[in-house]
Amino acid sequence: MKKKVQDWMDRQKPEAIAFLQEMVRSKSEQGKEKEVQMLIAKKLESIGLEVDVWHPDEAEFLQHPYFCATRTDFSASPNVAAVLKGSGGGRSVVLNGHVDVVPPGDLTQWENDPYSGEIKDGKLYGRGATDMKGGNLCLLLALQCLKELNVPLKGDVIFHSVMEEESGGAGTLAAILRGYTADAAIIPEPTNMKIFPSQQGSMWFRVNVYGRSAHGGTRYEGVSALEKTMIVVKELQELERARNERITDPLYESVPIPVPINLGKISGGEWPSSVPDHIVIEGRIGVAPSETLEDVKHELEDRLASLNDEWLQEHPPTVEWFGAQWLPGSIDQDHDLMKLLTRRFTEICQNEPVIEASPWGTDGGLLTAVGSTPSIVFGPGVTSVAHYPNEHIELDKIFQAAVIITLTIMDWCGEVGSGTQTELLVKKDP
Amino acid sequence: MKKKVQDWMDRQKPEAIAFLQEMVRSKSEQGKEKEVQMLIAKKLESIGLEVDVWHPDEAEFLQHPYFCATRTDFSASPNVAAVLKGSGGGRSVVLNGHVDVVPPGDLTQWENDPYSGEIKDGKLYGRGATDMKGGNLCLLLALQCLKELNVPLKGDVIFHSVMEEESGGAGTLAAILRGYTADAAIIPEPTNMKIFPSQQGSMWFRVNVYGRSAHGGTRYEGVSALEKTMIVVKELQELERARNERITDPLYESVPIPVPINLGKISGGEWPSSVPDHIVIEGRIGVAPSETLEDVKHELEDRLASLNDEWLQEHPPTVEWFGAQWLPGSIDQDHDLMKLLTRRFTEICQNEPVIEASPWGTDGGLLTAVGSTPSIVFGPGVTSVAHYPNEHIELDKIFQAAVIITLTIMDWCGEVGSGTQTELLVKKDP
Repeated sequence: MKKKVQDWMDRQKPEAIAFLQEMVRSKSEQGKEKEVQMLIAKKLESIGLEVDVWHPDEAEFLQHPYFCATRTDFSASPNVAAVLKGSGGGRSVVLNGHVDVVPPGDLTQWENDPYSGEIKDGKLYGRGATDMKGGNLCLLLALQCLKELNVPLKGDVIFHSVMEEESGGAGTLAAILRGYTADAAIIPEPTNMKIFPSQQGSMWFRVNVYGRSAHGGTRYEGVSALEKTMIVVKELQELERARNERITDPLYESVPIPVPINLGKISGGEWPSSVPDHIVIEGRIGVAPSETLEDVKHELEDRLASLNDEWLQEHPPTVEWFGAQWLPGSIDQDHDLMKLLTRRFTEICQNEPVIEASPWGTDGGLLTAVGSTPSIVFGPGVTSVAHYPNEHIELDKIFQAAVIITLTIMDWCGEVGSGTQTELLVKKDP
Repeated sequence: MKKKVQDWMDRQKPEAIAFLQEMVRSKSEQGKEKEVQMLIAKKLESIGLEVDVWHPDEAEFLQHPYFCATRTDFSASPNVAAVLKGSGGGRSVVLNGHVDVVPPGDLTQWENDPYSGEIKDGKLYGRGATDMKGGNLCLLLALQCLKELNVPLKGDVIFHSVMEEESGGAGTLAAILRGYTADAAIIPEPTNMKIFPSQQGSMWFRVNVYGRSAHGGTRYEGVSALEKTMIVVKELQELERARNERITDPLYESVPIPVPINLGKISGGEWPSSVPDHIVIEGRIGVAPSETLEDVKHELEDRLASLNDEWLQEHPPTVEWFGAQWLPGSIDQDHDLMKLLTRRFTEICQNEPVIEASPWGTDGGLLTAVGSTPSIVFGPGVTSVAHYPNEHIELDKIFQAAVIITLTIMDWCGEVGSGTQTELLVKKDP
């Protein structure tokens, strides 16, 4: 069967690459996902699956405690799902991929049009190629391969093509609430072919630091919000140190800072010769798989409420939690799906996979916490170019990952009945 | 004569206050000075003076090394000058006032319309009331009084009503280049009735600090421009300390920081979960009367070129000198005009004046350095409300200052011939 799958993938390459180009050329920034979703829905239909296309707008969705988006109108951003039904009695799997892409940013840093889909030296270029339309292609290839090779599965294979991952996962939340959950999930986000059983969650925060204005020539009559911000920054650096010292998970062994606090933006003051009376910092705090968002919020807020500075005690910085958030997620490292994926990876790649914790959040956090669907993140994309100019993906890796995922689904959803697939697999293929 | 001047001022009050209201109601922000200048020109004509109204545009002006403005087109911003000719043989004086006002800023912080000119409890409210249309009224009253009382003067009294002081003095530069200089000058900027023989100069600067971007979840792969900015801020704090330790002028004795470095604005970073790769700080550095602008520029630049940080040595912050600058200025404390003004102040106010160095620049720096006209800053305005919401001025102070200035001009430009007026005055009025 391994040979059959590999041969099928080889034959599929030209058509699959052309389809990836089509997906990349569709500029599916948030609010503009409709075109690419229609492409994918058409592809699913051509594979022979029944397709569900919907615009999430139910109260349960919009008012869900983990609903997190910059908008509430998704009429231009449909979700797509499709199910490859098993014969029953097997374990089900969710295959989850998002189609929204972050904006291209500074165009002068791109060597070509950011949505070119151009191929050079075996790499396909364009915003979204790595994060994560290349990964989505793996999932579509797996579905098509299973269907065309008529592989008999007992468990269902449930495909999500979701919007809005880049702002915190409203698309996946909607898919979960519509009932598209399973016994486990695979999310082919760009991991450089590493396997991530744990994913760092994260939240955005905004800290407002206040001072008192005065003319710059008599700046001693005011209180500089910038000087006070330096105290706040130092405290946040201390907090990062303390939080990371607590982390003992061996998955983070080689990670310099498992759950970083990144201060990404600063602005304040209105005039060079006035003392600034308000500075705003915006940042991202990493959330360990063992933590809850609420605990982390309280820890940061408590720190900033007890700063060792008279002015800041009387005029405490205010903290807002805004914008995106990603729940952390993790799957047991001994989980059968982990074992099966690792085994197939080793078989196909001829070496052991790197198993780590992801340094960023994925929709796996929502799938686990809200959908009771523990998730593994494993994909062919290049981590370092996600969100960056000249984003690209190696085409060979896509097909390699597609083979691994297809075989893993076969193992998991099983021709071989229920029970621990790993044991059966070991017997079958020692 | 003192009695005659005081009585004249008393009679003049209603008309003068109405005229100040008219001036304040004219929203003479930069580029909109024409209306108020026309009011003043009309007033000068009604006093019986020949008036010079012109729009500076000569190459000598625009290309002058101390030309500093945010624009080069002054067609909506005329300058006004007038001369009360003396009979000859006496010392001349420049009376300098600017008509441009800073914008009102946040309107919600004003209790009334910022250009109301409303009077309440003896105070006249509105942007420009204190900085410095109230001071300008003193000068106009002095001219009118000298003219109406037919005081015979030997030296010329040269009045400047200039634009563009708030951005560095292009209006006064134009007046100097047109030949309106004298043996000394009085500038009634808002000093709270203090006498400022020395004025702090200042310059604006912009520091760019560079880092290297990365995803916030792996922030250790980048270099935070914000962390590096903290090192730069610390160095600028050190520089301020070192610069102020050098200042021994007794005029600065009671000033906590004679020449402050104010960091007024900060901005940088583009995304909460990206490592910021560029932060910009904008500030103002005070320049002591004993310093040149060039020396101060070099001192700051040298500091930031030799920071004790490997990254910053390889990627040094860049410094730009932009926007406004004010030359420092000073007049000898034993200068006759200082003695005469101090004497008349003491006589009228029944107490010794406070003599200090100003914490901000005025057009006195240009008058001294470019126009060889040493200047004293002394005016009725309230220092603390200049540039702030609910700017106002005490009306009584305006008339008190006008009396002092009128009598000082009489002493200086002298009925009594040339020579040291102070000695004669001492003899005449022991």
